[in-house]
Amino acid sequence: MKYSEQLKKLGTETAFAVSALARAWAEKGNEVYPFHLGDFNLPTPNNIVEATLKGIKDGKTGYCPSEGIMPLREALAYDVGSKRNVTYGPENVSVQPGGKPTIGKFIASIMNPGDEVLYPNPGYPIYESQIEYQRGVAIPYGYIANSKGFEIDIDLLKASISDKTIAIIYNNYQNPISAESSVKEMEAIAQLAIENDLWVLADDAYYEIIYEGNSKSIVSIPGMKERTVILYTFSKKFAMTGWRVGGAIGPEKIIKHISKLNVNAESCTTHFIQDAMVEALNGDQSGPEFLLNTLRERRNATVNGLNAINDINVTSPRSTFYVFPNVTKIMRAKGFSDVEELQFGALKNANVSFCTRDHFGRPNKDESDYFIRFAYSGIKVEDINEGMAKLKEYFES
Amino acid sequence: MKYSEQLKKLGTETAFAVSALARAWAEKGNEVYPFHLGDFNLPTPNNIVEATLKGIKDGKTGYCPSEGIMPLREALAYDVGSKRNVTYGPENVSVQPGGKPTIGKFIASIMNPGDEVLYPNPGYPIYESQIEYQRGVAIPYGYIANSKGFEIDIDLLKASISDKTIAIIYNNYQNPISAESSVKEMEAIAQLAIENDLWVLADDAYYEIIYEGNSKSIVSIPGMKERTVILYTFSKKFAMTGWRVGGAIGPEKIIKHISKLNVNAESCTTHFIQDAMVEALNGDQSGPEFLLNTLRERRNATVNGLNAINDINVTSPRSTFYVFPNVTKIMRAKGFSDVEELQFGALKNANVSFCTRDHFGRPNKDESDYFIRFAYSGIKVEDINEGMAKLKEYFES
Repeated sequence: MKYSEQLKKLGTETAFAVSALARAWAEKGNEVYPFHLGDFNLPTPNNIVEATLKGIKDGKTGYCPSEGIMPLREALAYDVGSKRNVTYGPENVSVQPGGKPTIGKFIASIMNPGDEVLYPNPGYPIYESQIEYQRGVAIPYGYIANSKGFEIDIDLLKASISDKTIAIIYNNYQNPISAESSVKEMEAIAQLAIENDLWVLADDAYYEIIYEGNSKSIVSIPGMKERTVILYTFSKKFAMTGWRVGGAIGPEKIIKHISKLNVNAESCTTHFIQDAMVEALNGDQSGPEFLLNTLRERRNATVNGLNAINDINVTSPRSTFYVFPNVTKIMRAKGFSDVEELQFGALKNANVSFCTRDHFGRPNKDESDYFIRFAYSGIKVEDINEGMAKLKEYFES
Repeated sequence: MKYSEQLKKLGTETAFAVSALARAWAEKGNEVYPFHLGDFNLPTPNNIVEATLKGIKDGKTGYCPSEGIMPLREALAYDVGSKRNVTYGPENVSVQPGGKPTIGKFIASIMNPGDEVLYPNPGYPIYESQIEYQRGVAIPYGYIANSKGFEIDIDLLKASISDKTIAIIYNNYQNPISAESSVKEMEAIAQLAIENDLWVLADDAYYEIIYEGNSKSIVSIPGMKERTVILYTFSKKFAMTGWRVGGAIGPEKIIKHISKLNVNAESCTTHFIQDAMVEALNGDQSGPEFLLNTLRERRNATVNGLNAINDINVTSPRSTFYVFPNVTKIMRAKGFSDVEELQFGALKNANVSFCTRDHFGRPNKDESDYFIRFAYSGIKVEDINEGMAKLKEYFES
């Protein structure tokens, strides 16, 4: 039987392979310290669970509009708009089965074969995969370490724009490196988008996972609302990764296209879950507050644990639930030349599981340092401390 | 801002427009008899609701594998295989957020630009849309009325196969016309697929909505299992259209491709709903039995009501929840040349809402008769009888 040639361009999330490895190691009787996956070991807030059950009992079990139910589109328009100082209405919202679907549907709505799309690397691997699978050219831009963490290499980004460039994918509060743009950096990106008439996908998956200060969005900058699609997800803020609900929010015309893709792809997002998301947005907020406080404690434990290791020096990220230390010195001391050796070594010697830079896109040219990623959303403080102590022993040995 | 040119090839489900029309008419204070949408006014069985709540409480709220959770893949492999006399394992199953996603992902897995795919017309409009959107050539095949209802125009199907044909989409127990293949017809299609080395998408959405006799599947015919992907959905059997859960079932290699498309599209299908589907398949079956009995009564009422109208003569379909009468004589008597006139007229004069043949694909050449489609899944017997009486009055006036 024959298959589509285009499947060869389709990427995947190799981070799932790390989960499989950790599971296999645990099944051999080892206690694994799981820092590999951006998922939760915390329950979804109870008011959301109650609203879900009510939705089912109220008969929200049949089809609903492909673009989402009106009360949720209204609630999302208000919530996302008011937190970014822009005005949205329900016509600007297309409900999605998760945050991820917005990536593929955004690209499908704007890109023609051979068009170039700029994307962050290291970054969420689905950007690269969807651009190339959909016959575009994926052009990476990178980050530079600074005293606060990381900044976007704006010079490279600028130099990478050609007459074929149609969009920038911009993931402020970034996975995997927790980069947060300064006002100046965000304005520079907006200026490039406006001057070159580019679309922007603002992947705001971690917009509300912020421990100090307030989140800023590129959509708030004049001239940006008409060219920006926001990827919104309930997954992180409400510990709902497995529920699969989110939204694409942007100019009415592109949102109509995205909703037409919904009709063709999945009909609609689970009806009673949409109903419960109105409660998530408008109801009691003690659930997400508890979640954020818990994550803050875990961040502190992770950062402290890492900085206690010789030759590791990380700044404390103000957002996301990832820490991305440079492990070049440790690699050299161990005589490793592939960061996978360090990943496997840490699992076998310290029972600590993490992802590496290589799980987040192909290395950029001239990249010479080695990085690994710790996710602390699925591991409690006590285990973070234990795991870090074991990791210190292994890394320093 | 610029958009993808390919969006122009993307179709939609115009049947949703009929819902909007019916809703607008109801909002004016009219009691509408809803025969337009294949959705339910019946609750999802309670054991499934209980299992859903248990899944949430048990913490099935995080990510799960893109291909689906192992217990559900095992349960679906057994259920679908044993009901079709073939052996499947979990490696043959990719869980999907509904029945529909299998259509697009099947096509994405096998089709290259310019390849031809045969599809039923009238038929589910997403076939045509997905084939053309994904750069293929959609070649329709039609149906011929016979004493039992409708049969596939096998001569046309055969004549339509070229060296560019790669697949046949085959929807036995068909929407919208309720066509059911004879053994001879099914064997003829299988022979064409085998002789021409074609893939078959067996859209089995209504496989278990059968009122008399047993369902038969093309996958049971020797030589077919290795070239067939089954579209399975929980939507119809369990009154779960708005839950969005189903599966693609077929040869291991194509299922791997489909699961990789899952990684890129939506990560996974709602975790706790997958958990509840194991209960749906293996638990108490009184829910789907009640549903089928209710639908049978509604079918009888709909068929009797239609046959009481002068110039309408339908056979009673053994499957699906649709009836597809020929209304050519009524059109002529009323002096209508567009079946939409009859649809609008019935809504305004009899408060009866239905879809027409035009909602299920572009008319085939040489098509001269007019058809309308009645769905009886969302209307109780009493209202069917009332609506049919009013329709008789309007059609005969």
